[in-house]
Amino acid sequence: MAGEIVALAGGIGAARFLEGLVAVAPPERLVVIGNTGDDLELHGLYICPDLDTVAYTLSGNVDPEQGWGMAGDTFSCLEALARFGAETWFRLGDRDLATHLFRTELLRSGLPLSEVTRRIAEALGVRARLLPATDQRCRTRIQTDAGVLDFQVYFVQRKAEDRILDIIFDGAGQARPAPGVLEAIHGASVVIVCPSNPLISIGPILAVPGIRQAVCETGARVAAVSPIVVGRALNGPADRMMRSVGLRPSAAQVAELYRDFIDVFVLDRLDEAEAGEIEAMEVKTVLTDTIMKDQQAKVSLAQATLRALEP
Amino acid sequence: MAGEIVALAGGIGAARFLEGLVAVAPPERLVVIGNTGDDLELHGLYICPDLDTVAYTLSGNVDPEQGWGMAGDTFSCLEALARFGAETWFRLGDRDLATHLFRTELLRSGLPLSEVTRRIAEALGVRARLLPATDQRCRTRIQTDAGVLDFQVYFVQRKAEDRILDIIFDGAGQARPAPGVLEAIHGASVVIVCPSNPLISIGPILAVPGIRQAVCETGARVAAVSPIVVGRALNGPADRMMRSVGLRPSAAQVAELYRDFIDVFVLDRLDEAEAGEIEAMEVKTVLTDTIMKDQQAKVSLAQATLRALEP
Repeated sequence: MAGEIVALAGGIGAARFLEGLVAVAPPERLVVIGNTGDDLELHGLYICPDLDTVAYTLSGNVDPEQGWGMAGDTFSCLEALARFGAETWFRLGDRDLATHLFRTELLRSGLPLSEVTRRIAEALGVRARLLPATDQRCRTRIQTDAGVLDFQVYFVQRKAEDRILDIIFDGAGQARPAPGVLEAIHGASVVIVCPSNPLISIGPILAVPGIRQAVCETGARVAAVSPIVVGRALNGPADRMMRSVGLRPSAAQVAELYRDFIDVFVLDRLDEAEAGEIEAMEVKTVLTDTIMKDQQAKVSLAQATLRALEP
Repeated sequence: MAGEIVALAGGIGAARFLEGLVAVAPPERLVVIGNTGDDLELHGLYICPDLDTVAYTLSGNVDPEQGWGMAGDTFSCLEALARFGAETWFRLGDRDLATHLFRTELLRSGLPLSEVTRRIAEALGVRARLLPATDQRCRTRIQTDAGVLDFQVYFVQRKAEDRILDIIFDGAGQARPAPGVLEAIHGASVVIVCPSNPLISIGPILAVPGIRQAVCETGARVAAVSPIVVGRALNGPADRMMRSVGLRPSAAQVAELYRDFIDVFVLDRLDEAEAGEIEAMEVKTVLTDTIMKDQQAKVSLAQATLRALEP
């Protein structure tokens, strides 16, 4: 199979899946469209947690235990910042800080996020192309009992414990796909929605006007990999969030959210009972092991996904 | 002796002297007016090397070996920045970076440098008052054979090896003394010019319109401590710089530069031969040990200076 593989990606789950993907397909064929809804500004720095998780993972820099941040990083700067009363709930490592300093300086100089992301990925040694969904500011906010919270406040500072009333993509109406995003989707050989939270990782990407439509209209076959196994999120709070907004935390529910554009849905063997419901949406199902406990599991999942997308 | 002690201070030499001073006088009596001519912007951060050296020293945070930066600091962020092609000749430690992040964010929020400096000093535990000479941008630039260089480029990146043709205080004409500076000088009990480079540490302070005049006019007795011993700078390139601009690198020459406002000049016993020349300027001389090799030496120098200023 030739041509580009376009992946829509959130953070940790997506990055782990992509690690498997670049082991079975040339990374140069891969275009990753990353979520920027989680971006935040802290200590005067512009931080892109999901883009960085993907870049650190694909360049072999990621902390393998936590799945984000730089391996072996230290937190001396953050500890020193605490003396100034700065907020330290968002864990920024010393090596990680360099990425944010570099990004912030380039953005302030007037470069768009897509170009800055390209330079960061290149400097780190990422061989795949990494694109932010948009160069505009489009931020995920969570409406809760405690008010409307910035995503990272909800997610990291308050540990995703508030009840969710609504999810808001603030600025989505004015956002445009970053240069190359629509072209990549239209010209792709295959499109894969990574096993990421459909609401707050893939949702903000699809909320950028034009992207969902492009995924619907592309001639490429489109697959999604379930981030839910037996009602539980592989990673993060997707299950609780889905329940909060009145959705079932299930593979079939995720497929339902994507049914307007997917041809293939990859779910865990443990969810075999849901395959019929998904097939009834005229979506082909692939049952496999989706829990990425080691590199071999990542590779197998990527292989199974690519195989299902073959014409 | 009651009332405020006002000190004009550069970096390392001044900080060491002030360490002795706060051991013999209550730090709450001390107002330090610091040099901001060395300030620079790097990696999008606003850095005040001299103010930080004073603050780190007076709060017990300074690296005692090098005399600047934080004790036991690490350089992980800087090493990571190097991967992005960022300049790393200016050594920013991980803990040190927190100060610059905090400062930069507050300055961007619109606070003046004097208020930001107050907050940094307070957070670090500095008991003396630390004031920048000015809140305005006034930068020392060095005209050399190789062109006009920003001070830190000349000093750190190029190791002060270029021949100096001129020293420029860029922006001095438009600068105003920071709030409290003139009041402190006018109301002082005594004023001390620390053993700092007269050209590029004390010079930029005195170049802010109104400050030199205030030091001339204050009712307080004014002393200066020589940064030169037997023709050599105690610290840094003052001797070479003085020679470069056609001055003798000598204690008497430093006294000459300050003769319009000093009552007392403190110089090393080794320079006893120069005392007559200085006395001829109608400046009282104090011969003592000025090499601050340990805390006792710093304390003795501070004591000798204060004693000479007694009415």
